[in-house]
Amino acid sequence: MKIGVIGIGITRFGEIWDRGLRELLLDSQLRALNDAKIVPQQIDAMFTGNMLGDSLSGQVHIGAMATENLNLDKPSIRVEGACASGALALRQGIKAIESGDAEIVMVNGVEKMTDVDTGQVTTALMGAGDEELEGFHGLTFPGLYSLLANAYMHKYPSLTRDILAEVAVKNHFHGARNSYCQFKNEITKETVINSTMVADPLTLFDCSPITDGSATIIIAKEEIAKKMNSEVFITGSGLATDTLSLARRNTLTAIPAGQKAANQAYAQSNITSKDISFAEVHDCFTIAEIMAVEALGFAKEGEAFNLYKNKETYFDSKHPINTSGGLKACGHPVGATGIKQAIEATMQLRGEAKNRQVLNATVGVTHNVGGSGATACVHVFKRLR
Amino acid sequence: MKIGVIGIGITRFGEIWDRGLRELLLDSQLRALNDAKIVPQQIDAMFTGNMLGDSLSGQVHIGAMATENLNLDKPSIRVEGACASGALALRQGIKAIESGDAEIVMVNGVEKMTDVDTGQVTTALMGAGDEELEGFHGLTFPGLYSLLANAYMHKYPSLTRDILAEVAVKNHFHGARNSYCQFKNEITKETVINSTMVADPLTLFDCSPITDGSATIIIAKEEIAKKMNSEVFITGSGLATDTLSLARRNTLTAIPAGQKAANQAYAQSNITSKDISFAEVHDCFTIAEIMAVEALGFAKEGEAFNLYKNKETYFDSKHPINTSGGLKACGHPVGATGIKQAIEATMQLRGEAKNRQVLNATVGVTHNVGGSGATACVHVFKRLR
Repeated sequence: MKIGVIGIGITRFGEIWDRGLRELLLDSQLRALNDAKIVPQQIDAMFTGNMLGDSLSGQVHIGAMATENLNLDKPSIRVEGACASGALALRQGIKAIESGDAEIVMVNGVEKMTDVDTGQVTTALMGAGDEELEGFHGLTFPGLYSLLANAYMHKYPSLTRDILAEVAVKNHFHGARNSYCQFKNEITKETVINSTMVADPLTLFDCSPITDGSATIIIAKEEIAKKMNSEVFITGSGLATDTLSLARRNTLTAIPAGQKAANQAYAQSNITSKDISFAEVHDCFTIAEIMAVEALGFAKEGEAFNLYKNKETYFDSKHPINTSGGLKACGHPVGATGIKQAIEATMQLRGEAKNRQVLNATVGVTHNVGGSGATACVHVFKRLR
Repeated sequence: MKIGVIGIGITRFGEIWDRGLRELLLDSQLRALNDAKIVPQQIDAMFTGNMLGDSLSGQVHIGAMATENLNLDKPSIRVEGACASGALALRQGIKAIESGDAEIVMVNGVEKMTDVDTGQVTTALMGAGDEELEGFHGLTFPGLYSLLANAYMHKYPSLTRDILAEVAVKNHFHGARNSYCQFKNEITKETVINSTMVADPLTLFDCSPITDGSATIIIAKEEIAKKMNSEVFITGSGLATDTLSLARRNTLTAIPAGQKAANQAYAQSNITSKDISFAEVHDCFTIAEIMAVEALGFAKEGEAFNLYKNKETYFDSKHPINTSGGLKACGHPVGATGIKQAIEATMQLRGEAKNRQVLNATVGVTHNVGGSGATACVHVFKRLR
């Protein structure tokens, strides 16, 4: 597989009170067109990742909104897999090209989350878990990930509260170097540990925030992308699923779907984890980044703590993770996150990441998870010029 | 394009108060596996059409639910395009096979609509239109289609109130012959005209009902389907979009996206409308069937009234339309409708439609619309043995 990235566009992530779903989406669409230097009519199809338009904005049918925004009548579909919606949309865009159906595809991820109260958002997000087995009984997503954190830290006590906090500290360090990021302030370990307890052991600063944002990537068939002088190509797309509920899961100390998706994407790209220059992973909670790093093969299960203890996940170290600031600092507009990861990967491989630039970056991986691990989608990006 | 249909499964459509989203979905999945005579492990990927899981059941992430139901960890994605979600899922299943990513794909459509009050359903359905330009100002879907009906009947007065009622009369006639149908009673023109006014000129019997239901179709690569002795193949898939809101539409007397999608699917299948034995069309309201019949080329714009005046749309006549009973009589579990249409097409082409069987059926078309015409997806099915 070799699908070129020909354009990227992203809005500021944050509380964007003066824009609705449509305006956010249009903003990233126009930026991506501008970056690709193409006109809307050159786009053959669109896919848009969105999770909560229905419950938070009363708006489904966002596929048609995406084409209407550019005055097109082309095929356009909304794709949803909870917080992995963005990566799933990207995957469908790739398949549209591989099937011969399209040559140039626009893929969007958009979410508008701050127009309603936090309780409503928390309830809506719980739709990503099992409503009957979990949501109905009062579980929330911090609650689900606290169960995972407790199971993991019980089995692997080397992951201490202090080391877990380092995930957030590092992501804020990166976020402070990213212009489109929601939280641009650096924090200390103490900030994390002493912040309000949300679901033991996870405090406020272990949790990603509620965010508005939109991100668009334009991809193209290899030959077209080459003619347009693209440097960045997608060489692998892996996708695996698991049970919606934790109760039915085989393990609580790993997210197996992430590992399966990674193995598929690596095999398609002829790489191993050793070849990877950097990764954007799904740190909806700090414990999720620990499990992601292990799923991607940077450490064995139970051993990721070493990377954080030794500060190896910073942009200028051995295993740069979440140079965008991750979901924690950059923000988590759920449907947009998967596309944001792809954009960060593209910026790194193009050498456009400025003061968070990974040196000599040649292979980047994005890892996007839905729910508490029921969907995981991994893409491999390579610099090929 | 030649994608085989190797299995179909459908629940009863109606008010199914003893089953939730998961049980409905599982039911049609198991029926389809049984029909295909395959085991779950033979499935490479799944796509599931669903519109309102979020707002009516608090459940998104239905892709993962679909694989979990069969104890699989394969790629599985939810696809949404309002009431066209089912057809869009089918299209994505086809593309997965065409891209070389999968050989056997399960495609589901499921909707659970009767657990909440009707007002909540009406509001949620309005998410298929433009929330800012239409829903926010109090428009509902009967209201939108009443605007279309008024515009059409003003321009083409040959479509009288009496003839419009014939759409519902014919669909109930077919529905009375379909075991999985919601309303199995025949009605008269007077029933339609004298029923409660919903949005002038549309009365209760001009409107499709609120329905629970699930439908599953299993498709396969041509060679595999041939080995399994499939008789039915999908030879075309067309998809077009338009504006979400009627205010921005170029015409109110037709649904252009339907015509564009039909033209794409016909071209892929090397057919014209003259070759079509029967069609399942999106009659969410009686006026929608009139516009669908014209979009598919069975009559020119403004002339579909003739087919109804002359009773040519019955299963044993010249242009059989909606032998399943259509959305009106068979029911409209929105995400499931597109797959139900595909199942009815398969049953007709297999010769399994019993007392509503179209004689010598060789080519069937399905026409699924989202919103007031912002998405339209058309598939062509052929009997090839």
